[in-house]
Amino acid sequence: MTMHANTGRLIGVGTGPGDPELMTVKAVRALEQADVVAFFAKRGSNGNARTIVGPHWRDTWIELPLVYPVTTELHKDSTDYRTAIADFYEQSVQTIENHLRDGRTVAVLSEGDPLFYGSYMHLHVRLCDRWPAEVIPGVTAMSGCWSQTGIPIVQGDDILTVLPGTLSEYELTRRLADTDAAVIMKVGRNLSKIRNALAATGMLDRAIYVERGTMANTRSERLADKPDDNAPYFSIVLVPGWAGKP
Amino acid sequence: MTMHANTGRLIGVGTGPGDPELMTVKAVRALEQADVVAFFAKRGSNGNARTIVGPHWRDTWIELPLVYPVTTELHKDSTDYRTAIADFYEQSVQTIENHLRDGRTVAVLSEGDPLFYGSYMHLHVRLCDRWPAEVIPGVTAMSGCWSQTGIPIVQGDDILTVLPGTLSEYELTRRLADTDAAVIMKVGRNLSKIRNALAATGMLDRAIYVERGTMANTRSERLADKPDDNAPYFSIVLVPGWAGKP
Repeated sequence: MTMHANTGRLIGVGTGPGDPELMTVKAVRALEQADVVAFFAKRGSNGNARTIVGPHWRDTWIELPLVYPVTTELHKDSTDYRTAIADFYEQSVQTIENHLRDGRTVAVLSEGDPLFYGSYMHLHVRLCDRWPAEVIPGVTAMSGCWSQTGIPIVQGDDILTVLPGTLSEYELTRRLADTDAAVIMKVGRNLSKIRNALAATGMLDRAIYVERGTMANTRSERLADKPDDNAPYFSIVLVPGWAGKP
Repeated sequence: MTMHANTGRLIGVGTGPGDPELMTVKAVRALEQADVVAFFAKRGSNGNARTIVGPHWRDTWIELPLVYPVTTELHKDSTDYRTAIADFYEQSVQTIENHLRDGRTVAVLSEGDPLFYGSYMHLHVRLCDRWPAEVIPGVTAMSGCWSQTGIPIVQGDDILTVLPGTLSEYELTRRLADTDAAVIMKVGRNLSKIRNALAATGMLDRAIYVERGTMANTRSERLADKPDDNAPYFSIVLVPGWAGKP
């Protein structure tokens, strides 16, 4: 990586879990220096990261939404889906690289923490060898959830397992049975399966369901008390560890 | 929990991993409102959290170090150790509760994120039913480490396992063999064992060793390139997932 005067710079900016005050001082200052502010979005929605940065928005910024192609008709494992997504990332890289060549500082917003399940990493790995690139970590959605509910997640020598709710009920059960604490992401339509796996491992009584952690419209309750299995995609289930808690 | 005017308030404040700029805006604002700033410390050292807040320090704050009893001669699982530590937390609770009764806002600093392996949780669980208590999440040490090195840790449906380096070589090996990505904490004197477990699972080549992540004197390198097994206690080993990375 060679540095030039007035060369473009790429910054992956973690915006934290939802509450704009949970942005870091470093993220706010990096945005103040940005020329272009990019963010991933679905057609018809600017997405959470853009919303979180809303209170800090400046009219001098070039706003660059990176809009995912419509792919609902394609299965995630199909070649067509993979090609469409790969093409989308390549096009996004080209758009950003044009700004970098013009000497601009491009900040890419990432909800939570950029390198923890964030889409920013797709741009980072394609650009970081050619341009100065920095990643500003953020508070993760899961930290926002356990802090909001005041529930210690892990202590001492606890093992924490972070599981996607998309796993099979067998895999969820097997892995829950073998950990001290767990965070289950991507709950959405998987909640019934997650509930079964928690019941099978005797963990249902201590599981907490959190929707839109740290956002204005957040909700949380003991999963055992939740009467239905309706959940937005980005809700989270927490299974706290710390077995010897006083 | 009943709220009174001028009642004391407890706030667990995550300070982030080391760089003072990685404190959240919310943490900085909460400290501005604090009357008492408490932090856990070892005899002879103020600890990282107090150091991180250093640039923000105000002379109007009542500084309250909570100094761990000297217990190096006791084994961690012994009754004497457990009693000494339990007594220490009870005494800390009483000291803080005296300030709360006087109507003060008490902020307890916690390096990283308070409810993720932080000592603050020992105070929180003992006080949160009697006093208004809030937890402000922070950027974890592990997020600081993977962001600083620019290494995506998990993507898509990856499973992440957070493991204490204190586990046996057998347990480390078994769990590394069964995850997409891992973070190994509490490296210290366990590095040789960790290295063996990573080699046995074919993960050594992609493991990254990080010392004092995001602090001024940080160091990181591929673990395979590190010529010795000397490591401070709070160093971290990252094993990135994302098998299909382009």
